[in-house]
Amino acid sequence: MRIGIVGYGKMGRLFRECLSGEHEVRVYSQHERMDFSSLRELYSWAEIIVLASSLSILPHQLKELSTLSKELGGTKVIFDIATFKADIVGLYRHFPREVKVASVHPMFGPGTASLRGRRFIVVPVPGREEDSKVVGELIKSLGGKVEFLEARTHDRIMGFVIGVPYFLGLSYLALSIERGLGRFGGTSHAFLETYGKAVLNDSPDFVEEVLKRSRGEIEEFLQFLREGKPNPSKLRKRLSEEEIKKAYERFYRALE
Amino acid sequence: MRIGIVGYGKMGRLFRECLSGEHEVRVYSQHERMDFSSLRELYSWAEIIVLASSLSILPHQLKELSTLSKELGGTKVIFDIATFKADIVGLYRHFPREVKVASVHPMFGPGTASLRGRRFIVVPVPGREEDSKVVGELIKSLGGKVEFLEARTHDRIMGFVIGVPYFLGLSYLALSIERGLGRFGGTSHAFLETYGKAVLNDSPDFVEEVLKRSRGEIEEFLQFLREGKPNPSKLRKRLSEEEIKKAYERFYRALE
Repeated sequence: MRIGIVGYGKMGRLFRECLSGEHEVRVYSQHERMDFSSLRELYSWAEIIVLASSLSILPHQLKELSTLSKELGGTKVIFDIATFKADIVGLYRHFPREVKVASVHPMFGPGTASLRGRRFIVVPVPGREEDSKVVGELIKSLGGKVEFLEARTHDRIMGFVIGVPYFLGLSYLALSIERGLGRFGGTSHAFLETYGKAVLNDSPDFVEEVLKRSRGEIEEFLQFLREGKPNPSKLRKRLSEEEIKKAYERFYRALE
Repeated sequence: MRIGIVGYGKMGRLFRECLSGEHEVRVYSQHERMDFSSLRELYSWAEIIVLASSLSILPHQLKELSTLSKELGGTKVIFDIATFKADIVGLYRHFPREVKVASVHPMFGPGTASLRGRRFIVVPVPGREEDSKVVGELIKSLGGKVEFLEARTHDRIMGFVIGVPYFLGLSYLALSIERGLGRFGGTSHAFLETYGKAVLNDSPDFVEEVLKRSRGEIEEFLQFLREGKPNPSKLRKRLSEEEIKKAYERFYRALE
């Protein structure tokens, strides 16, 4: 398939790398001259368009693509890979029917080695739910695992599974730096601090955006923390010995 | 050297395994018949005694060893490897002078492959500070890295570098189970949840003990969280690009 990638940040690069083996992949970037000099050129060439741009540029590019699709026609599949969806999905409403659209969230970062077996959440565009099935099938054909979530539910869950971890990792890192804990820390400390540092591999703007949009869920988690300390015996009953053993092995693997 | 290990839980096993290559190592356990049938037998044989017993048995064994050392005499090095020290160090006061004593905290768990390069904190017994230098040198000769900390400072730092991570890992795991987040979680989620599960590799009693003894530090951390969200740009300035890159690689290694 001819896959056009819009945006050449860390995720754009990752998608190009992972998809180039089996597909023809070309890139358009606003910031540097890649394979095309305009979105129009990319649109004319591509069968599939993946928008890997930042949340600030994405709305403009979606509007331009929507206009281009009416002018130039053609059967395409178009989806973005932004982290938050509630402000995005509405922008897909006015694409012509022959263009299949959805918003997609890859649940991994640029450190992954392959798309195979990785999880993608597909967020349907309201009124175009059928399109999201086409997009889901396409992602499966690229090796991904697919879940479907409505935009607001998606954003709320992301607050919990990205926003809260980011917040905890960075807060623990800040505490560690402030109090000079590094000298005395053992494996638990190293694991959490490693995570805090890994979060900073994302751009500060992106991290700020995640924290801002997850404010509600972070507040809920803080409330959860205040309500009582965790009960290890109760938690243990919810997990198999095997699960705990494997987690412990993975934990040490990160520290080697 | 003849090293006698008291207690044959996960850490006792680890020490036996790691030290057996270069030393003669024998074990006494209250729970199962190992190399000795009593502490007295172990005491008579060993040059170095490592107490790897649980926090509930340890005080009794220290008292017994103190009595034995007066009765049987001999030059020995004796230290425990318990996680909290304030209630322990006083029990070493009455050993005869020819027995060198200190309290030691290995800053790693039973998942480690070797003691080499691993961090140990040596906590001096008040009034016997010279002894702790002997113990420190011994641990260096076994391949460990040594830091010294006074008991109360040690316990307070442990509240931050073990208690707070345990609390965060288990709380996040509890949230994840309660809300069914696993299905939608990506890499950040998986990393934190892995940590929460890895904590449960310790016995529930030990985890409860850690949480209980770290109550003050956990409360301080919660206060720290309430005071404001972390600032990624500011944190980035405290770290090198190299550090962030390496942390990100380690982060993905745990997820493979």
